[in-house]
Amino acid sequence: MKKLINDPADVVDEMLDGMVAAHPDRVRRLDDTKVLVREDAPVDGKVGVVSGGGSGHEPTHAGYLGQGMLDGAAAGEVFTSPTADELGEMIAAADGGEGVLCVVKNYEGDVMNFDTAAEMAAMEGDTDVEQVVVNDDVAVEDSTYTSGRRGVCGTILVHKVAGAMADRGGDIDEVKRVAEKAIDRVGTMGTALTSCVTPEKGEPTFDLGDDEIELGIGIHGEPGVERTEQMPADDVAEELTGAVLDDLDPEGEVVTIVNGMGGTPLMELYVVNRRVQELVDDAGLETWDAWVGDYMTSLDMAGCSVTVMDVDDELKELLAHDADTIALKR
Amino acid sequence: MKKLINDPADVVDEMLDGMVAAHPDRVRRLDDTKVLVREDAPVDGKVGVVSGGGSGHEPTHAGYLGQGMLDGAAAGEVFTSPTADELGEMIAAADGGEGVLCVVKNYEGDVMNFDTAAEMAAMEGDTDVEQVVVNDDVAVEDSTYTSGRRGVCGTILVHKVAGAMADRGGDIDEVKRVAEKAIDRVGTMGTALTSCVTPEKGEPTFDLGDDEIELGIGIHGEPGVERTEQMPADDVAEELTGAVLDDLDPEGEVVTIVNGMGGTPLMELYVVNRRVQELVDDAGLETWDAWVGDYMTSLDMAGCSVTVMDVDDELKELLAHDADTIALKR
Repeated sequence: MKKLINDPADVVDEMLDGMVAAHPDRVRRLDDTKVLVREDAPVDGKVGVVSGGGSGHEPTHAGYLGQGMLDGAAAGEVFTSPTADELGEMIAAADGGEGVLCVVKNYEGDVMNFDTAAEMAAMEGDTDVEQVVVNDDVAVEDSTYTSGRRGVCGTILVHKVAGAMADRGGDIDEVKRVAEKAIDRVGTMGTALTSCVTPEKGEPTFDLGDDEIELGIGIHGEPGVERTEQMPADDVAEELTGAVLDDLDPEGEVVTIVNGMGGTPLMELYVVNRRVQELVDDAGLETWDAWVGDYMTSLDMAGCSVTVMDVDDELKELLAHDADTIALKR
Repeated sequence: MKKLINDPADVVDEMLDGMVAAHPDRVRRLDDTKVLVREDAPVDGKVGVVSGGGSGHEPTHAGYLGQGMLDGAAAGEVFTSPTADELGEMIAAADGGEGVLCVVKNYEGDVMNFDTAAEMAAMEGDTDVEQVVVNDDVAVEDSTYTSGRRGVCGTILVHKVAGAMADRGGDIDEVKRVAEKAIDRVGTMGTALTSCVTPEKGEPTFDLGDDEIELGIGIHGEPGVERTEQMPADDVAEELTGAVLDDLDPEGEVVTIVNGMGGTPLMELYVVNRRVQELVDDAGLETWDAWVGDYMTSLDMAGCSVTVMDVDDELKELLAHDADTIALKR
């Protein structure tokens, strides 16, 4: 294993300190936690929007802290859910008096711990804590850590939509409504060319032959739908985009994301995007906005995912709303 | 080799088309070239700022096209200089009547072809074409493709400074002056944990043992200063930052970049940044701004570089000036 780390046991801690050291004007760390919040949290009179999950998916979630997106981001250990206690502290820190929306990716640990944190918050005070669960991965129903579909890169668009509505002064019901609308209208499918290697384990999470790729992979290396021979980028784009469009059946305008898994050069993501845009066009759709880059990664995994969101006027307005975060500015 | 590409011979072409397909409102491609320019180029009455070089370093350079940075970006084949003809077409397309500054990374092919393009432009018309050559890599004097020091990630700060001055209405002399000032005040050193693999060759450019890293590596895998056993991230940060600070001997405030080489997760870059900021502090310096991410890559190479710029009030003002590009927004 070759990684730029110190003791594997310290990697999340040191990463979070490194984020604060880079962006002290943007984020701060809650004492004795792995929670980062906006430097100015809580924002009085604004609905708080928070998320969290295992580490290893950077810039997800802390990279999206800031005006127009997230108020809090809880990091678990690598590929491990944050604790309910830490989620509770995050919720309290993000509470500007108008309630807090938790955007949860659909993994059993995350869902359970966010549930517990929300219950604790309800017992303790008068914070209105609401939740939405993102399940955009069209590849498989049920998986290693998930009942139902997994929550993957489409989550970033949910952060953007919910965060924009909160920034515009929407109340907790409105923020939750648009988050659910975003969830209903987004789908994703990914592929891996290589396994990721976790710092703790130091070796590949799963084996993939020199000539194999896995379609429908999860962001922790959970099984996909098919192992197949390596194929040209255009064929990969067709498999992923086709599966998402079949599932989502969008009409009119879409937002697309070609997301890198962490170990794939940007050059290759643009090669994939070229074909994705042709496929969108062939389907009679129009791309309103195209994102290409590393938005939700799996450590050093080589591969990509394709996300499509079916956008209406309201979602476009929210997606176009200013965001000023570490990893995303609009 | 596992890559998300089609025919290796088409990878640059398809990448450029994929960029335009993602950002048609931002960039356009000059016909029959590998040159991208700002969609609204030339900007009348503004000095044009252009750059270019071999592909494989994305988002360098085309990711920095846009208001406040570059007007044109010429892509060569992977790790191969753009032709003088294409550079000439770029210069012409970026000429808004106030002259064009070429920001050249110090590689022999780039320097030669930019020289030829500038001479051709001088013979053909009345465009005032000026050049600056970036040579920020403190690791080695002279290298595989270079006389003197190589130009690496510090180039992005030169783009930012020159682009800002041009955007503020500075004339060609002023734009060149601040670019040269930026070059004088920036240093970089990198390390590789793995070799990159070019699409054409399909195998590692150089061999590195399972337990080895190379300090002072170039962005095409050119030799560095030392092969050593793997070391903790903190030690790597010390080697790189120490070498840059020794060379640059800054006073007061600095900008730092922890740049990923393409195959290294953002998590690890933040772990490195944590120590870099401690070292800056220990040296009695203050970080005015810290960048962490993939700014100038080497395909899928694992590793990072550390850049330090010694900033004064003028450079800070230019670095803080609005930029609205694909890969960087301020």
